[in-house]
Order: sequence, then structure tokens, then C-alpha cells
Amino acid sequence: MRILSGIQPSGSLHLGNYFGMMKKMIDYQQQGELFCFIANYHAMTSLSDGKALARGTLEAAANFLALGMDPQRSTFWVQSDVPEVQELAWFLSNFTPMGLLERCHSYKDKVAKGIAANHGLFAYPVLMSADILLFNSDRVPVGKDQKQHVEVTRDIAIKVNNVYGEIFTLPEPDIDDEVATVPGLDGQKMSKSYGNTIDLFQEEKALRKQVMRIVTDSTPVEAPKNPDSCNLFQIYRLFLDKAGQEALRQRYLAGGTGYGEIKEELFVTIRDYFAPFTERRNALLQDSDQLRQTLQQGADKARREAVRVMRKVRKKAGLAY
Amino acid sequence: MRILSGIQPSGSLHLGNYFGMMKKMIDYQQQGELFCFIANYHAMTSLSDGKALARGTLEAAANFLALGMDPQRSTFWVQSDVPEVQELAWFLSNFTPMGLLERCHSYKDKVAKGIAANHGLFAYPVLMSADILLFNSDRVPVGKDQKQHVEVTRDIAIKVNNVYGEIFTLPEPDIDDEVATVPGLDGQKMSKSYGNTIDLFQEEKALRKQVMRIVTDSTPVEAPKNPDSCNLFQIYRLFLDKAGQEALRQRYLAGGTGYGEIKEELFVTIRDYFAPFTERRNALLQDSDQLRQTLQQGADKARREAVRVMRKVRKKAGLAY
Repeated sequence: MRILSGIQPSGSLHLGNYFGMMKKMIDYQQQGELFCFIANYHAMTSLSDGKALARGTLEAAANFLALGMDPQRSTFWVQSDVPEVQELAWFLSNFTPMGLLERCHSYKDKVAKGIAANHGLFAYPVLMSADILLFNSDRVPVGKDQKQHVEVTRDIAIKVNNVYGEIFTLPEPDIDDEVATVPGLDGQKMSKSYGNTIDLFQEEKALRKQVMRIVTDSTPVEAPKNPDSCNLFQIYRLFLDKAGQEALRQRYLAGGTGYGEIKEELFVTIRDYFAPFTERRNALLQDSDQLRQTLQQGADKARREAVRVMRKVRKKAGLAY
Repeated sequence: MRILSGIQPSGSLHLGNYFGMMKKMIDYQQQGELFCFIANYHAMTSLSDGKALARGTLEAAANFLALGMDPQRSTFWVQSDVPEVQELAWFLSNFTPMGLLERCHSYKDKVAKGIAANHGLFAYPVLMSADILLFNSDRVPVGKDQKQHVEVTRDIAIKVNNVYGEIFTLPEPDIDDEVATVPGLDGQKMSKSYGNTIDLFQEEKALRKQVMRIVTDSTPVEAPKNPDSCNLFQIYRLFLDKAGQEALRQRYLAGGTGYGEIKEELFVTIRDYFAPFTERRNALLQDSDQLRQTLQQGADKARREAVRVMRKVRKKAGLAY
């Protein structure tokens, strides 16, 4: 089973990204053949600052590799290093009714949020279809907001297959309803736009400061506390196994442990959990030539797959004359 | 001055194509640096028959080369052999307001004529902009119906240049109002869709039959005839210089020459005019490996130019990380 995923080239990461998406992605490597790319073409729909995009791309690569992406086992590349995807997008465009794109919620939502209504944003689902179909992907893990795009991909692929025979594998969306929504400092969903994040890869002092800002209620130290309504508990449990979670729960219920003490423990836990990742990340970014080489090798690997599909497409479409 | 032109990969040609477009294009080689490509990506918006497209591409190449396209002097290639144009189209898409495309008449006209309203058709002006901007084109000879697309190209280029500095050359449309509309057999504009064409590269017998079908009035042989209202005269004059046109005019006015006799002369004129081209065309199509090699060399030449622009674009956009 081949799993495909594109990730935004953003350098800054928080616990919500890690437990909500990245960890799951890295764990996929155990289950199937993972194709994972840094979606820098897609990022262009909302980012015209080239320096920020280039830096974000390298940092995202370093983040993923540091957190466990194995470039030997998986295929990991930067989207624009396999530009064949753009030719495929053009091919698919000619089998994509305008109505199908006009019905996409994501475009409308983004425009409503104030992102410029450019053609790139509108055409995004076609490029995403090309990403998926270029690699014969079986499964595409997506959030609920992206489910429609996988359906668009299937619609287009079916149309093409009807005309030319079975060129494309039909992908299945893989929506994990169980993904724990990671709460932020204030109990809302952790999100950069809410300013309530605990960030990865930061200085010890800054990390400690963020953890100390986790909002708790005013139950006194000696009183029993309710773990289920406690934000601090919900964050801490992400780092604990079943037994650890149970032990923490008992300490809450027994009373006698203050939130400050628990926060101090959580700070140390987070710091120690990510310490080896941070070290690896810094080493990767230090030697950016080596990092680029790893990405180039990933692109070569991805391209070997892409070329197979494109050979069929070019022949069927008549581009090979 | 660099002139860019894309031509439809259609194998069958008539006098209207030749005098309306191709001859002019070939003459451009004397005036400037001609970049001319066979627009097979564009053709995909209306043609899904891959075999027809592949054959049409080779035949169009042979037609142009036979009629005088000089691959040494000019840059002549097949659009999809420089796929960088698709990456540029994606880049430009992110600077193309949807409203700009929605206002394009050509899309609406084509849909009104029954062509499927696919995204490819809608996005056509973005790809055309990429064609133009990828080669720093100064002038783009277009029909009136395509003038708006050159304006779209300028709008997009200005937007990009405002953000990133002067990446792109602003193209000028070159609309030749003097292009003689070539009349067909029935006096309407010569067009495949009217079934009133005199075709190039056909058997002598078939050519003669077409010429004999030119509609004339019923003025008797001996009577004076009006050249200005005569369809046959309007076609014949395309092959004559000033003196030849004047001599024919005098024969019309003098009377005594029947239309049949003039048609017979015209047939011989057309046959002899195109005979060397037909011979060259057949030789080119005979040795299709050599033809492909010529096109490949053209693509290499075009790519050398394309790469310069794309290097800037990739750097500015942050695709070079």
C-alpha cells in the first residue's frame, strides 16, 4: 500500500503539528510505502516571499528528517524537484470540468478569509490531483477540509481512465477521526493563529515560559483536581503511556500536587523528549549541502516513479509524437 | 526584436492558412529573431485523440519546414518538448486574478460553440502567457481574437515585475489588419468548417477538382467581367505580383476569356507554386527520425533560452532552496 502526503514548507512547528500530523506520518513508514513531499508549489498560492519559502523548505525538510523520516525507507522530496507534476496537472486540467472546481469549499473559504482570489488558488485541487496520481497513490491521509480534494482527484482519474484505459490508480482518502485535537495554552485548539502554541525546537528558557503559561483553574495545591477538565493534563498525557497517564490521574485525584509542580515536570518532559530531535535538526541545518543532497536523492527516487506514469500519459495524450 | 508564435498542430492546411498566417510567419524570419512552436499542449484543450495529436504534430512540423521555416536561423520546436513552460504557468497562476480570466472572451466563445467547459480551456491564457514570457518575446503576432490574451500576459507580467523586479519583457501584440482574408470557393472566408477550402499538399486530381468548384457568375465568355466582384480573381491574385494582377485584370475587363480557362490556369499556378514544397514535405515525413531530431535540436535551442528565465523565476519564487 502506497501512502502519499504533502506537507507545508513551514519551518516553525508546535505540539499540535507534531501530535496531530507529523508523528502519524512518520509512523506510516511502518505500515506502508510512504511518499512524502514538501509542498512548495502549493505554498506559492499564499506566499510570494521567495526567501521565506526557500528557508521554510529547508527547515521543513530538516524537521521531518530529524523527527524520524527515513529517506532510505521512504521517498521524501521537495515538490518542485519533480516538475513533471505540472505537466500532469495540465493534462488533468483538460478532464476537469470547471463546475468541479467551482464547488470546492476550500477555495471559497480561503478567499472569504482574505487570501487573494488568484488562479493558482482556484487550480490548487488540480495540482493536488496531479501530486496524488503521479505516484499511483493508494491512500492519502487528509484532514476533513481536504477530503473533497481527494474526491475531485478520483473524479478526474475516473474520467481519464474512461477515455484512455487504466492509467491511474484511484486513491482513497484516509481520514483519521481519532486524531487527538491538541489543546493550546488556553484550552482552544493549538494553532499559530491563536497564539497559544508550545513550539518545537526552541531554547530551553522560551519553552519553559510557554509551558508556565498553560491556563489552569484556581484549585489549591492540597485539594483534589479534575484531570479531565484540565488543559495541562490533556497536554501532558500526549507524552505518557497508559500507565503514566493513570499515575498522573491518581496524583490529580489525590490532591497535594500543585499545577506549578506539574508544569515543571511537563517542561522537563517536553525538553527531554525533543532534545535528540532538536540536536539532529540543528546538525542537518548546519550542513545544508548534505541536506540538499538528501533531498536531491529523494527527488531522483520520486522521479523514477513519476516517469513511469508520465510515459503512459504522454503516449496516450499524443505528446510523444 | 524577438517574435514569438505558436501554431496549431494540424496536419491539413489550405490556402487561407498559408496566405493568412504561415507565409507571414516564414517571412518574419527576415525581420527578426523568430521563436515558433507547435502548440500541442494547447491543442489538448480540444483534442483528446492522442494518435491524431501526435500525427498532427509531426505533419505540422513537416509543413512549416517544407514551406520555409529555417531551423538554423529560427528557433522551432514542439511546445511539450520544453515542459518548463508548465512550471512557469503555475508561477504566473499565483499572480493571475480569477477576474482577469473570467473576462476572457475566447473561453466564453468556445464554450458557447460547444467545447467542454474544462479547466484547461479556462486556464489557456495563463499557459499562453507562460509561452510568451518564457522566451522574453517582444512581439506576438496574433489575430484579433487573441489580442486580449496578449493583454492578459502584459497584466500578469507587470504584476510579477512589481513584486520581484524586472523579470519579464513586456510583449506587444502585433495585429496585422492588412492580412488579406482569403475567400473560399463560395466567396465566404476560406475555412475548414465551411467546407470551402483549396487544400495544400494534395493530389493533382483532387486539387483540380477543388479549383473547378470555385463559384463564379454567369457572364458569357465573350463579355467583359468584373474582377473586383469575382471570387476566382481574388484567389488568383494571391499568386501574382502587381504586374501579373494588372494583366489579369485587363483580361477580365476585355472579355473573351471564360472562367473555365482562368480556372485551368489557376490550377496549374497553384500546383506549380506548391510542387517543390510538397516534395520537400513528403521527404521530411518519409524520414521521420530525422524530423524528430530536427525538432529535438529546436527544443534544445529553445530550452537554453527558457532556462535563463526560469533560473530567475525559481530564485525569486523560492523554488531554489
